[in-house]
Amino acid sequence: MNSKTKILLVGTGAIGGYYGSKLSQSGAEISTLCRSDYSTVKEKGISVTSIHGDLHMTPAHVIKDAAEYPDIPDFIIIATKVLPDINIPEIIQKAVHPHTALVLLQNGIDIETPVLKAFPKNEIISGLAFICVTRTAPGVIDHQDYGRLVIGTYPSGITDKVKLLHSLFTSAGVSCEIDQDIIAARWKKLVWNAPFNPISVLAGGADTKAMLESKPTLNLVQHVMEEVLILAKATGHPLPEEIVKKNIDDTLVMTPYKTSMLNDYESRRPMEVEAILGNAVRIAHEHRISVPHIESLYGILSLADTGNTKKHT
Amino acid sequence: MNSKTKILLVGTGAIGGYYGSKLSQSGAEISTLCRSDYSTVKEKGISVTSIHGDLHMTPAHVIKDAAEYPDIPDFIIIATKVLPDINIPEIIQKAVHPHTALVLLQNGIDIETPVLKAFPKNEIISGLAFICVTRTAPGVIDHQDYGRLVIGTYPSGITDKVKLLHSLFTSAGVSCEIDQDIIAARWKKLVWNAPFNPISVLAGGADTKAMLESKPTLNLVQHVMEEVLILAKATGHPLPEEIVKKNIDDTLVMTPYKTSMLNDYESRRPMEVEAILGNAVRIAHEHRISVPHIESLYGILSLADTGNTKKHT
Repeated sequence: MNSKTKILLVGTGAIGGYYGSKLSQSGAEISTLCRSDYSTVKEKGISVTSIHGDLHMTPAHVIKDAAEYPDIPDFIIIATKVLPDINIPEIIQKAVHPHTALVLLQNGIDIETPVLKAFPKNEIISGLAFICVTRTAPGVIDHQDYGRLVIGTYPSGITDKVKLLHSLFTSAGVSCEIDQDIIAARWKKLVWNAPFNPISVLAGGADTKAMLESKPTLNLVQHVMEEVLILAKATGHPLPEEIVKKNIDDTLVMTPYKTSMLNDYESRRPMEVEAILGNAVRIAHEHRISVPHIESLYGILSLADTGNTKKHT
Repeated sequence: MNSKTKILLVGTGAIGGYYGSKLSQSGAEISTLCRSDYSTVKEKGISVTSIHGDLHMTPAHVIKDAAEYPDIPDFIIIATKVLPDINIPEIIQKAVHPHTALVLLQNGIDIETPVLKAFPKNEIISGLAFICVTRTAPGVIDHQDYGRLVIGTYPSGITDKVKLLHSLFTSAGVSCEIDQDIIAARWKKLVWNAPFNPISVLAGGADTKAMLESKPTLNLVQHVMEEVLILAKATGHPLPEEIVKKNIDDTLVMTPYKTSMLNDYESRRPMEVEAILGNAVRIAHEHRISVPHIESLYGILSLADTGNTKKHT
C-alpha cells in the first residue's frame, strides 16, 4: 500500500472527467466508478483537450460497482448530474469508509441532504465548478473556458480534509478557493443559474443576450434573482443585495452564452430541474416564503423536462 | 340600395371566415376586407367544411382597403388576431360611419381600448368565440367543434345593435348569447386562456392532460387562474371563486386538447402574447396588484414569440 491520497471518482462526464484528470497530476491516485463509459475508460482512460494544455489519465482502477474498489478512499468525489434517478448513497455505499470524505462536485441547492442522511458520520465537502467543459464522447472531454473551483466543508467551517483537497487541486494547476460558507456559495451560484438556465430552455432556445434584451424577460430574471436572495437570507446565508445588478451587468458584457441546461434540453438529456428549482421551492415552502417567479419556472420546466425525455425513449 | 343589414368583415381567417359565412345565411349582406387572402376570396369566396354542414359564401364586395367599401356598414366585424402590428383603427377608418357598430370578435383582455380611443362616438360590441376552427388554406375554413358566441355592448349594457347582431347570428344557426357585462365574460375566458395557452407552448408542446398531470404545473395553472380572478375583481368584474376549480375539473375530463396558441407557435405564426398576458400585466400595474405568475409567463412567452417569428423570416 502506497502513501498516495486515494480518490474514487464517481462520474466521468464533463466535470468528473476534467477535474479527475487534473487531480491525477497532483500525484493523487485516481480510480473511477463509471456506468455508461465503463468499457471505454477501462480500455483507453480519459482524454482531455483543454485551453490549458491537453491531458490524459489512466485511472488506477476502473470499476462498475463500488464494491470492487480495493482500497480505503480518502475522498469519493461525486461528479454526476443531480437527478432523481441517480441514487448517490446507493452507488457509493460499498466504498464508503468512516475515514472517507464525500465530495459533491455538483450543481444546485440543498443537494447535500441525501448524502448527509445516508452517511451522517462522514465528512462532506461541497464544491462548485465554474467552467465551460463538454464530454464529446465516452472518456473524451473538451475544456473550453474557465475552470475555477469553490469548495468547502459542509455545512460550514474548515477541516484538514478540505485543506488537503484544496492543496491537491492547487498543485494540479486548478484555481481553487475554500469557502467557509459553502451554502452561501451555492445560493450565490443559483442567483445566476435559477433564471438563466430555465428561461433559456423555456423561451424556445434563447442565449443570455436575448434574455436580457427583452424587457419582460429581464424583469423576470430580476425577480427570480431577488427571490433567490430572499431564500438565501431566510436560510441564514444572506448575500449582498447588489449581487442582482452585478449578475445582470456581468452577463450583459459576456459573449452571448448558451446555457448548459439548454444544451442538455436540445440533446434530450434530463435537466437538473429539482437541484436548481425544485429544492429552492421546497425550501421556500418550509420557510413559508413566497417565491412565485421561481415556482412558475419550476411549474413549466418540470413539464418540459418530462416531455423532452419521454420523446427520447 | 337594399334594406339588408350591411356587414363589413375584416379578416377572413378561421374565426372571420366561419362566422362571416354563417352570418351570410341570415340574409345580411357580407363584404370582406382581406389582406393576404384577397385574390382567392375575390375569385372563389369562402368555403367552410363544418360538423354542422358545409357552407359557401360569396361576399357582396371583396376589398383590400376600407376606402373601397361602397356603402355605409351597419357593422364592421373585426376578426383578426390581436397583434401589435395589426393596426385596427387604421385598417377600418375609411369605412367607419357614425352609424356603424364596431364588433371585435377577438381574444384577450382590454383589447377594445385602441378602437374606443380612435372612434369614441361609435358603438362598440365585444365578442368571444368558443370554437375549434382552422383556416386550412386562403378562403378555406374547417370547423371541427363547438361554435358558441358571447357578445355584448362595450363596456356594458344592451343596445338595439347588439340585439340585431344577436338576432342575425341566431337566425343563421349560431348559438349566441348576449352578456351585459362583456368585460367579465372576457376575464372569464382568460381564466382558461392565461394558463393553458402559454404553458402549452413554453413546456415544449404540452396538451391539457399533460399540464394537469404534472403537480408543479397544475400548481402554476391554479395560481395563474387565481391571479386572473384578482384582476377581474379589481376592475369591477368579480367572478365566482369556484371558477378555478370548475375550469380545472372541466379540463380534466376534456379529450386532451392542443391549444390554439401551441398551433400558432408550431406554425411559426405570431402569438397573441399582449392580448392574453401583456394587457393583464399592465392592468395589474395600473391597479398596483401583484400577479407574479402571470408576469412570469409573460416574461418567457414574449421572448419565445420573438425568437419564433424571427426564425421564420
